[in-house]
Amino acid sequence: MISISIVMGSKSDLDDVRSTFEVLDEFNVEYEVKILSAHRTIDETISYAKGLYDRGIKVVIAAAGGAAHLAGVVAGCTTLPVIGIPMKSGLNGLDSLLSIVQMPSGVPVATVAIGKAGCKNAALLALEIMGVYDKDIHDKLVVYKQNMKEKVLASTID
Amino acid sequence: MISISIVMGSKSDLDDVRSTFEVLDEFNVEYEVKILSAHRTIDETISYAKGLYDRGIKVVIAAAGGAAHLAGVVAGCTTLPVIGIPMKSGLNGLDSLLSIVQMPSGVPVATVAIGKAGCKNAALLALEIMGVYDKDIHDKLVVYKQNMKEKVLASTID
Amino acid sequence: MISISIVMGSKSDLDDVRSTFEVLDEFNVEYEVKILSAHRTIDETISYAKGLYDRGIKVVIAAAGGAAHLAGVVAGCTTLPVIGIPMKSGLNGLDSLLSIVQMPSGVPVATVAIGKAGCKNAALLALEIMGVYDKDIHDKLVVYKQNMKEKVLASTID
Amino acid sequence: MISISIVMGSKSDLDDVRSTFEVLDEFNVEYEVKILSAHRTIDETISYAKGLYDRGIKVVIAAAGGAAHLAGVVAGCTTLPVIGIPMKSGLNGLDSLLSIVQMPSGVPVATVAIGKAGCKNAALLALEIMGVYDKDIHDKLVVYKQNMKEKVLASTID
Amino acid sequence: MISISIVMGSKSDLDDVRSTFEVLDEFNVEYEVKILSAHRTIDETISYAKGLYDRGIKVVIAAAGGAAHLAGVVAGCTTLPVIGIPMKSGLNGLDSLLSIVQMPSGVPVATVAIGKAGCKNAALLALEIMGVYDKDIHDKLVVYKQNMKEKVLASTID
Amino acid sequence: MISISIVMGSKSDLDDVRSTFEVLDEFNVEYEVKILSAHRTIDETISYAKGLYDRGIKVVIAAAGGAAHLAGVVAGCTTLPVIGIPMKSGLNGLDSLLSIVQMPSGVPVATVAIGKAGCKNAALLALEIMGVYDKDIHDKLVVYKQNMKEKVLASTID
Amino acid sequence: MISISIVMGSKSDLDDVRSTFEVLDEFNVEYEVKILSAHRTIDETISYAKGLYDRGIKVVIAAAGGAAHLAGVVAGCTTLPVIGIPMKSGLNGLDSLLSIVQMPSGVPVATVAIGKAGCKNAALLALEIMGVYDKDIHDKLVVYKQNMKEKVLASTID
Amino acid sequence: MISISIVMGSKSDLDDVRSTFEVLDEFNVEYEVKILSAHRTIDETISYAKGLYDRGIKVVIAAAGGAAHLAGVVAGCTTLPVIGIPMKSGLNGLDSLLSIVQMPSGVPVATVAIGKAGCKNAALLALEIMGVYDKDIHDKLVVYKQNMKEKVLASTID
Repeated sequence: MISISIVMGSKSDLDDVRSTFEVLDEFNVEYEVKILSAHRTIDETISYAKGLYDRGIKVVIAAAGGAAHLAGVVAGCTTLPVIGIPMKSGLNGLDSLLSIVQMPSGVPVATVAIGKAGCKNAALLALEIMGVYDKDIHDKLVVYKQNMKEKVLASTID
Repeated sequence: MISISIVMGSKSDLDDVRSTFEVLDEFNVEYEVKILSAHRTIDETISYAKGLYDRGIKVVIAAAGGAAHLAGVVAGCTTLPVIGIPMKSGLNGLDSLLSIVQMPSGVPVATVAIGKAGCKNAALLALEIMGVYDKDIHDKLVVYKQNMKEKVLASTID
Repeated sequence: MISISIVMGSKSDLDDVRSTFEVLDEFNVEYEVKILSAHRTIDETISYAKGLYDRGIKVVIAAAGGAAHLAGVVAGCTTLPVIGIPMKSGLNGLDSLLSIVQMPSGVPVATVAIGKAGCKNAALLALEIMGVYDKDIHDKLVVYKQNMKEKVLASTID
Repeated sequence: MISISIVMGSKSDLDDVRSTFEVLDEFNVEYEVKILSAHRTIDETISYAKGLYDRGIKVVIAAAGGAAHLAGVVAGCTTLPVIGIPMKSGLNGLDSLLSIVQMPSGVPVATVAIGKAGCKNAALLALEIMGVYDKDIHDKLVVYKQNMKEKVLASTID
Repeated sequence: MISISIVMGSKSDLDDVRSTFEVLDEFNVEYEVKILSAHRTIDETISYAKGLYDRGIKVVIAAAGGAAHLAGVVAGCTTLPVIGIPMKSGLNGLDSLLSIVQMPSGVPVATVAIGKAGCKNAALLALEIMGVYDKDIHDKLVVYKQNMKEKVLASTID
Repeated sequence: MISISIVMGSKSDLDDVRSTFEVLDEFNVEYEVKILSAHRTIDETISYAKGLYDRGIKVVIAAAGGAAHLAGVVAGCTTLPVIGIPMKSGLNGLDSLLSIVQMPSGVPVATVAIGKAGCKNAALLALEIMGVYDKDIHDKLVVYKQNMKEKVLASTID
Repeated sequence: MISISIVMGSKSDLDDVRSTFEVLDEFNVEYEVKILSAHRTIDETISYAKGLYDRGIKVVIAAAGGAAHLAGVVAGCTTLPVIGIPMKSGLNGLDSLLSIVQMPSGVPVATVAIGKAGCKNAALLALEIMGVYDKDIHDKLVVYKQNMKEKVLASTID
Repeated sequence: MISISIVMGSKSDLDDVRSTFEVLDEFNVEYEVKILSAHRTIDETISYAKGLYDRGIKVVIAAAGGAAHLAGVVAGCTTLPVIGIPMKSGLNGLDSLLSIVQMPSGVPVATVAIGKAGCKNAALLALEIMGVYDKDIHDKLVVYKQNMKEKVLASTID
């Protein structure tokens, strides 16, 4: 069953967003990926966003760059938590970040870091959200954190 | 007949946006004002934007602050020129500016200056657009420019 | 039963953070508030963060300004979703924002807007996260969104 | 008949500005291109800008970078709508953007995104302006938008 | 005989620009003040700037804010050194600064600090330029520097 | 005897941080290098930082990028001076810099320049701190400064 | 005996710098305060800085704003650790910060936070540096940290 | 006879600064080039700067990057006009620019654009300063401007 919806403003961000897929694959959590635009396919975006809760989707991840309106528009159409990933852009992603994070009162977007680190963290944040109620995912997150820790501790400087 | 549509993300911007009204009043150009949000009233915003051309509206002015998505969303729903005014915000309007101006290929927003100067200029830009085909407005703009010039030239330092 | 933990780096942010309390009160969701510092009370912060999941807490909200490390440190100690609020600061909150949102791969913080809007939205995001599995909260969020919408639509310009 | 004037501060921006030409070519709208500088050829720039309206030009597009004064100077010399494109520069185009968009009250410049996306959008904005009164261009814009939409909807992730 | 020309984009900057006047008065160097705009009175600005050298003016000081084009346009019309003062603006003068200092190859503007400190320094820079060839001004600058130094050295902390 | 502790948030910064090692090697001052994270290995980081003073360590150098919390967290756990190096990041290191330097009252971090220059200077600052009481290091610093000076003075332009 | 030298670029920063004095007074560490400028009293600044080590001064604190060169120039003249405080300025202290922290290889300045928080932290950092070798100061710092911690833990929300 | 002094903070900037040399060579104006540092060779820098006026030097050009103090320190030591060139740096030269332009009241630096454009313009500004009193240079500048203009006007788009 698909738990996570990933919407991307443009296929050109795919290289970075693959990091999102990889984390979710690693946790065996099903997701779907849609290319949708807040400007070019506004009707489809809204209609898609409105239907997510009833389809049993738990979390939405929206990745976009520049004047990145995708996460905000989706957040306006659902009560599900929406995670926004600011993609790299001409201004180093600062425009993407501010367009996503500075949402007005009433419509939050859970914003993560710019670019690739954000793509990976969006998946982890989605898993943390699911893990609040899903003991299995929670347990896997504990192991994941433990592995990260051990990897750092095993690092040595030559 | 109403030629210009002004949409505002929040009534709290009214003090500055009154400058837009004043310029249009001075030119005797009719406008309507709507408070609409790209996040809280997305359906109404889209449906309103889609109907503008057929109602004979010529130009849309959208004023919003922070992660300002209003102008971009409206621009996605109409072929009319959309003028975006970045309102002042916690980051001095830089977030509003970047959220409005950095639109992706295919969906332009004609962005003016941050805050009050932008509010006045949005009206003038709308009039310039109408003046391309409307000789009367064009002539009034010529006079308006002439008056500005004379006002500057008449300035004296005590 | 307490579902949400709010940690603040300093009592001086209380004026803004009261907006967080108000939203949670409105939804009748119980929360606890702790003043804790990533620098001055690091042991207590870590020990507090580590115990949250087992106490049944669902979401953590961390508000801090400047070189704001609180949310990130808490996120390192729990698998719960951590929402970071960048408080206003000398650099208009840009330092707070970047210190919170730019987390490295592996440890996400769900960052919301700078200052008061972010305080309100942090509460709503926490509720959205709970609403994924809690039908009652979800239903209240639907009503809350509906009310926001109606309030916007009822706005008139004098 | 030439409807659109494109002025460039420097031939070195040609690679990006070709995107402007391509959109206009696609719409079969005639344009002329001038290399003019607000600093090196100020007389020619002013005299050129002043003559545009009487020659039947409808919209001016001005592309410049750095301390980009070209669009503003042209806007001071005509009642035609002037679209400013901030070209990439050493500061990622932020200097170009602020130099173009932050115009004082009375002399608007319709600013689009920094760099290549802005170049394409400047053409589309010019077409939108013409399309207000020109049914043929309006109809082509409707098709153009429809095509963009279908292209997004047809995107698939491998 | 008038040696220095001061042009201001707007009378509203007068409070700060009075610091420029005061320094020049202190040195008994004659100056004239003009309110001129690169956008509203472009012809007068150009014609004024072109005539400066032949009238025996030695240095031009141009103060403007926002998308500040005045100094650059004047610099395009004269071989005299042009000093640009970026006035405070909504973006703390950062837009003014970048609009003035980032001039393209071939047309320099000697930019000083944002706001009041810049206003005072513009006068001193103009005097330094004149002092290269004018022994009397040079000698006064030596005394001025000496006085500044003594004032600093005489400062005491209570 | 080890006098200086160098902690790095990630092995990926090693190329730049080698500049720190080289300066310390040149002064024959012993150091140890640890890869530790404020988020992934918080317990080990804290426990390590708390033990430094009693082990006779004199200065800590912490290098991290992005939302760089390492230096601040270490500074919260020791009374030793902590030098923070903001590593290069997607935002050119501005996020790293602000995350490190903008520490709240009570817990200073001695911040040096972004990237490689900062890596070298962190070592020199650590030596300056030791040189306050260690005549030998002080004398070597005098020679080091003298050598730098002579190298500059010997530079010639071909 | 005077251990710490505080140099200020301008008496106008005194309100904030008093926080530095207060912390040092609390620790009973003697200091001297000089108003000196890298530009107006360069000779006195250099001669003062060069003499510090031999007079037994342990640490220098330099507070300045804008194009803040004081800390860097002092650092060029001594092997003592120099702590730079970026004072608030027109650009919110960002110019002060970058002017102080971005020192070239070879001449570090230990930079603390912008404004008042930095003033207090500069004193604490100076004490930490002295505390490396001075057991008494170290012990007082341990108590100071303990007190800070207890104050945070005693905070309650009404 | 040498009229212009060029001081560089580092030989590594030579590639860009050659543009300064080329313009001066083109005008047959003699200059000398010194590598001097405000931090590493402070005595030599000051002593050099103090002697410039008496040696008949007319203008100083100082090029430096990062926390660029060279121009400001030189300006503190002479009544000659000092032109500052902010060299490219890790922060795209923004740190260099602010370190040079934001000088305090009393000690101006005539700042030009960041990087290569600034290097060329520094030479032209120096020539403009000399041209105020030197008819020959003035006449050459008139021709230079005329040539620039003709070059722009001769540009064609293929």
